[in-house]
Amino acid sequence: MNVIEAILARRSVREYEARPVEREKFRALLEAGMAGPSGMNTRPWAFVVIDDPARLDELRARLNKPSTAPAAIVVCGQPVDDAGQRYWALDCAAATENILLAAVELGLGTCWIAVHPKPDAIAATREVLGLPADVNPLCVINVGYPAEQKEPRTQYDDSRVHWQGW
Amino acid sequence: MNVIEAILARRSVREYEARPVEREKFRALLEAGMAGPSGMNTRPWAFVVIDDPARLDELRARLNKPSTAPAAIVVCGQPVDDAGQRYWALDCAAATENILLAAVELGLGTCWIAVHPKPDAIAATREVLGLPADVNPLCVINVGYPAEQKEPRTQYDDSRVHWQGW
Repeated sequence: MNVIEAILARRSVREYEARPVEREKFRALLEAGMAGPSGMNTRPWAFVVIDDPARLDELRARLNKPSTAPAAIVVCGQPVDDAGQRYWALDCAAATENILLAAVELGLGTCWIAVHPKPDAIAATREVLGLPADVNPLCVINVGYPAEQKEPRTQYDDSRVHWQGW
Repeated sequence: MNVIEAILARRSVREYEARPVEREKFRALLEAGMAGPSGMNTRPWAFVVIDDPARLDELRARLNKPSTAPAAIVVCGQPVDDAGQRYWALDCAAATENILLAAVELGLGTCWIAVHPKPDAIAATREVLGLPADVNPLCVINVGYPAEQKEPRTQYDDSRVHWQGW
């Protein structure tokens, strides 16, 4: 599938099959995430992959975000310098989008569940996953084989486009 | 080009041909951007496309970010509710990544120039483009036909990956 087709086909999937996600597919998703751009190329990210059902249940219960997806990737920022401090959330958002798009190619469905900047969700995620104080959870990406089909779409809106200036 | 190939092929391009970018390619880039995910699907974004040389020169001079790219897309947040306020920068970062990836498919090169959260860069961009007070510039994407070739890469780093917890 070409990249523009994949961009339009990426939809938030909320119904999943029970079958597990293969380890080599997690690897491909993480390669895509880490191929993303970052401010000053500091790559201020880390990823927690979860396919243990008990851990998933615990995290989702604490976030009050139930899901049938058999796996999740928690995208985190771990800045080590000023550029990382300024841009980690944006860099991690771009890495997240790469993962969502690579998943389309691999036949997987995903859904981006926000954590940052909600203080309660950040604290819950930190506690369940044992994240160090310098690691900032951005989001939880639910991952699994989709049990629903959604149509591609662009959402293009000409009123959001300005030429040369506002 | 499939989406994973495009993700790995996306590199920051700094050398550009002078030839202009066709209007239909801007349209395809903007369709890709607006196909991105957003918190509560509020789509808190707006885009300023610039291919007027004088305006480009003025913006780049004020940002102290010279470039030979014949065009730029300024990705902005324009939140209209609480979800937009919380997530506009992340939503716009995902839209930006979509644009960078769609450009690969279209034979275009890009480079993400940060504006947010630098106060001086935000003020300069607002002033040059006449942005209303509720419009927040996230970044400038330089766009043009590349005059340099860079190799695809993943930057995958196993030490950034954790399983089940930290």
